Amino acid sequence: MGNNSIQVNLCSTGKEKPESDQLQFGRVFTDHMFIMDYSQPEGWHDARIVPYQPLTIDPSSMVFHYGQTVFEGLKAYLSPEGDAQLFRPEKNLERLNRSNDRLCIPPIDEDFALEAIKRLVALEKEWIPDSEGTSLYIRPFIISTEPYLGVAPSQQYKFIVILSPVGAYYKEGINPVKIAVENNFVRTVTGGTGEAKTGGNYAASLKAQELVANSGYAQVLWLDGIERKYIEEVGSMNVFFKINGEVVTPALNGSILEGVTRNSVIQLLKHWNIPIIERKVSMEEVYQAYKDGLLEEAFGAGTAAVISPIGQLTWKLEHLFINNGKTGEIAKKLYDTLTEIQYGKQEDPFGWIEKVKEISNSTI
Amino acid sequence: MGNNSIQVNLCSTGKEKPESDQLQFGRVFTDHMFIMDYSQPEGWHDARIVPYQPLTIDPSSMVFHYGQTVFEGLKAYLSPEGDAQLFRPEKNLERLNRSNDRLCIPPIDEDFALEAIKRLVALEKEWIPDSEGTSLYIRPFIISTEPYLGVAPSQQYKFIVILSPVGAYYKEGINPVKIAVENNFVRTVTGGTGEAKTGGNYAASLKAQELVANSGYAQVLWLDGIERKYIEEVGSMNVFFKINGEVVTPALNGSILEGVTRNSVIQLLKHWNIPIIERKVSMEEVYQAYKDGLLEEAFGAGTAAVISPIGQLTWKLEHLFINNGKTGEIAKKLYDTLTEIQYGKQEDPFGWIEKVKEISNSTI
Ligand SMILES: Cc1ncc(COP(=O)(O)O)c(C=O)c1O
Ligand SMILES: Cc1ncc(COP(=O)(O)O)c(C=O)c1O
Repeated sequence: MGNNSIQVNLCSTGKEKPESDQLQFGRVFTDHMFIMDYSQPEGWHDARIVPYQPLTIDPSSMVFHYGQTVFEGLKAYLSPEGDAQLFRPEKNLERLNRSNDRLCIPPIDEDFALEAIKRLVALEKEWIPDSEGTSLYIRPFIISTEPYLGVAPSQQYKFIVILSPVGAYYKEGINPVKIAVENNFVRTVTGGTGEAKTGGNYAASLKAQELVANSGYAQVLWLDGIERKYIEEVGSMNVFFKINGEVVTPALNGSILEGVTRNSVIQLLKHWNIPIIERKVSMEEVYQAYKDGLLEEAFGAGTAAVISPIGQLTWKLEHLFINNGKTGEIAKKLYDTLTEIQYGKQEDPFGWIEKVKEISNSTI
Repeated sequence: MGNNSIQVNLCSTGKEKPESDQLQFGRVFTDHMFIMDYSQPEGWHDARIVPYQPLTIDPSSMVFHYGQTVFEGLKAYLSPEGDAQLFRPEKNLERLNRSNDRLCIPPIDEDFALEAIKRLVALEKEWIPDSEGTSLYIRPFIISTEPYLGVAPSQQYKFIVILSPVGAYYKEGINPVKIAVENNFVRTVTGGTGEAKTGGNYAASLKAQELVANSGYAQVLWLDGIERKYIEEVGSMNVFFKINGEVVTPALNGSILEGVTRNSVIQLLKHWNIPIIERKVSMEEVYQAYKDGLLEEAFGAGTAAVISPIGQLTWKLEHLFINNGKTGEIAKKLYDTLTEIQYGKQEDPFGWIEKVKEISNSTI
């Protein structure tokens, strides 16, 4: 499918845009959205940009019953020159196809999907907010739409992209958060869907989050579902610990989501010659390091918050106060470097940035 | 909420009903559906029966992204006297509320929901097919509809009931099926959502099912996610084994769905003084019993198929041919008894049947 095969149907009047400094996360959506349908024998077809609008879907559609969905999350940033730019979007589309594979959803053409995202972002460029820390959140997702009550892969799907101008994910900003280690509930397990970005993983996480939120924790830290010993990840972030001068992060094991931010953090640390190791990390080890005065930093890494320092980690009855509840040096340096690259304020030695403007003056 | 608080809006012309002997499962829906909304501060409100129609839902609705859904499945049967009757519907509504609790969805009023289901079934009584083994499948489900991209319990929901006239779930009927023991994928694990009837569990199961379907297996048998030793259940059925004169079934452990059929089978076996034990059952034990000539029967139990004898169980490289691939005596007796009670052809000593007609001549 080429560039020309996206039909464009513009809305007549745009919505009012929220003030850039009063943005929340994921509550307001732009004027247009991208949709593409899947059915047999056409495959993915009818790619179109249309006014943002409700979906009209049969109540028997499989998505409402059997959870066959996948999604992605990335952002468009405004550079000082006023260019719209994406951060490693091809990584998100690769992951979308890995999620598709696990969920028995037919793969999408990654190049075409990237083209579609760029065209949509180009069209909605005015919606990219320009205050510090704000961006245009991009949510590609696929839902199973066949009207059929039977447990089997759907024969019909919709691939949709919607955009939302967003402020900081954590109202606290780069301030350290309190995280509770979860001992009762598990998010997923080896052989399950943990590697995939699919709704069920998030639905499974709600109860644990709700219980700790009452005690002032931002999120939970998940342990492995088998031994309940090894650290996996935080609700929407991968996690890193600096222990005795060395950074460690749980190795990908089939139940952890492979974060784009995680991958970028690892590359940056290597670039800076800071020791970074991917391996199994037990909660016992982190606790022991803390007791020995060797736990120097802990932070989460994900698209929404970029880097989120962990100021307090609570495990059973123990409270680990990390780096005196302050943002650590490495967390700060990673946050600054990543956001400066993302916003085009610093050189991009890794080829991570994908400019949108190059096609914004094309067919639309 | 009382009987009168259901608004009824009938369609002008009904759809054509499929021939009773040509029914599939879950493809055709009746003329009307029940809907009720949830929002704050109203709680559940605006209960209504309306013409069956597509839902109009924002693309940012949480159900499309974070999988916060629950559902149930039960059936309405036509008795020889022409009465519509339900089988233990209160059990399904109890389970729906247990699922709601796990998924952070506000509870529904079980009595009111049963009333709503009965009124809908009464209204659609003509849709209950009358051929052998057919029934009207009832699908209550709840979806999270708040337009918000953030991982948190939704503040808005819809509770919907749709009806589908169905034939036998397995085209093979009470004929024994081939089941493959799953060694790579897992459905869920202790601390996960296995006990709840929620979309993510089914989405997680698709890949394993798809892989074995190619080799002619009807479904997979799930092992526990921790040791990969203990038997849990089949895709949409609980499972029973008769070993040396005694029936065993995996004990409820938090990751197995508590089936209404499972519960009924246990009650019937006790009533018949057939030894029935709920406990951990390892695949090794079943295999050993087979080798020793003591594995007399194996069968699944669930609303869709009622009782489904297992004629072949494949575990790694071993094929266990059970009871010469024929339906066992106990499976047959359970199937006959359950279906005769369900269809009102046999006395109901347990109070399992809930007649619908008693209210069918009420306000509609
Ligand atoms: C479960 C989970 N882990 C990790 C991440 C971080 O991934 P990324 O850096 O690609 O945003 C996310 C967020 O996307 C997530 O949902
Ligand atoms: C995973 C699973 N296990 C077991 C069952 C059997 O439950 P019930 O007998 O209530 O239909 C079902 C079907 O509903 C199911 O989906």
